[in-house]
Amino acid sequence: MPRYKLTVEYDGSGLAGWQRQPNGLGVQEILESAFACFAGPVFVQGAGRTDAGVHASGQVAHVDLPARLALEKIRGAVNFHARPHPVVVLAVEAVADTFHARVSATGRRYLYRILNRRSPPALDRNRVWHVPVRLDADAMASAAAQLVGHHDFSTFRAKLCQAASPVKTLDRLAVQRAGDEIRIVAEARSFLYHQVRNMVGTLKLVGSGHWRPDDMAAALAARSRAAGGPTAPPDGLCLTGVAYDRSEERAATDPGGDGVDREIEEEVE
Amino acid sequence: MPRYKLTVEYDGSGLAGWQRQPNGLGVQEILESAFACFAGPVFVQGAGRTDAGVHASGQVAHVDLPARLALEKIRGAVNFHARPHPVVVLAVEAVADTFHARVSATGRRYLYRILNRRSPPALDRNRVWHVPVRLDADAMASAAAQLVGHHDFSTFRAKLCQAASPVKTLDRLAVQRAGDEIRIVAEARSFLYHQVRNMVGTLKLVGSGHWRPDDMAAALAARSRAAGGPTAPPDGLCLTGVAYDRSEERAATDPGGDGVDREIEEEVE
Repeated sequence: MPRYKLTVEYDGSGLAGWQRQPNGLGVQEILESAFACFAGPVFVQGAGRTDAGVHASGQVAHVDLPARLALEKIRGAVNFHARPHPVVVLAVEAVADTFHARVSATGRRYLYRILNRRSPPALDRNRVWHVPVRLDADAMASAAAQLVGHHDFSTFRAKLCQAASPVKTLDRLAVQRAGDEIRIVAEARSFLYHQVRNMVGTLKLVGSGHWRPDDMAAALAARSRAAGGPTAPPDGLCLTGVAYDRSEERAATDPGGDGVDREIEEEVE
Repeated sequence: MPRYKLTVEYDGSGLAGWQRQPNGLGVQEILESAFACFAGPVFVQGAGRTDAGVHASGQVAHVDLPARLALEKIRGAVNFHARPHPVVVLAVEAVADTFHARVSATGRRYLYRILNRRSPPALDRNRVWHVPVRLDADAMASAAAQLVGHHDFSTFRAKLCQAASPVKTLDRLAVQRAGDEIRIVAEARSFLYHQVRNMVGTLKLVGSGHWRPDDMAAALAARSRAAGGPTAPPDGLCLTGVAYDRSEERAATDPGGDGVDREIEEEVE
């Protein structure tokens, strides 16, 4: 069965998250139902399970279809049948059947947006975290720098996290003010459950002056969730991209695995 | 009665436009109802009447209140009582009673966003015009340059336009591509009804190759709506700012008119 890589955009407000839930519609289910309309029942495997309310502009998934179809046809058919849900496929690529959206991923990139002004959002409702007290973005950036690197991130790990180990390598955590908005970019091979939102919630304590930037290092060293700040709301979070090695994406005409053992734990945020 | 200048942001999707309508809720009505909760019945005068579906990040209005109130209190109270509608007041300033949001305005600035990719928008639904065929932004920019200046804009004037004259000065019409998006910025003292959307709809004909850039000059010279392109949808349009002379905004402690006759026609888009 030919395998396809999908790049997916969705507005997570009003959705139950990536995964099918008993009490709400998930992105995965919306995509699978759309595929069912023209390709029969399929399983759509995502790179990461975003939570309810979290958005994506560059989620990646893979799907095996019963027959080879033109890439443009697949994209058009999914987008047609997914309506009116706020879920669209941006790109479809043919990949080797060794490509796995979650397991093959070598990097995830998230953007967290804080609207830092007195008035609540009208245009970006459900798309930002509204923080009315003035935040010091420079202090937040300096605290964020202390989290970059290979660390035990237990302080920022949700109770429900199923990862085998709390040790991760955070490649980037950049904080920048752009007018009324504070934008936080986080990059890593993979994240613990709620890691980004827990880091953002703690950075907010630094920005508002409740913590000094250096308190972040102490919180990290405590390796205890109780030492971290609260979890930032899902609204401001967006999965903007998932990276793969070129070799992992070899088209189906050139399969062949590389035999390397891969991290196979869940990726959730 | 003390007069206040309001800067207002709203998401126009789902609203009837600025003005109260028999069959839908207008931004003006939402603001007036919010004021009524703490200041009694008031009239809110906007700088321009945006149509249904058009957004604003910098609409300006003025209102006379029965008593002087702290600016921060006014903003907080309006935003509290306007909930859950997607309308918020960003700033409140005390102004002279000669200040008039519409009449005193010396410039309006609009942004029109086209999402130019195959897939429809999920994250920016109702916020952009989705044009799936590839547009040539350079050709559009070159056509737009032909509209800048003092002209008879009858070609881009809606039938329902109530302006006394079709002659306007267009100060800026800039077209720029940013990734999948084409952003068109329009600036003028005032615009005819639907002028921006009619210019954008015509620019799209240039971008798609149906018109050459030079056809724009001929269309303008024809001074006939029939010579222009279709009206672009409201979704992509946002009123981003209204400009005033500093002297017009003199605080109420320093009133005094300048005696200059001002353009008093309606401003609608």
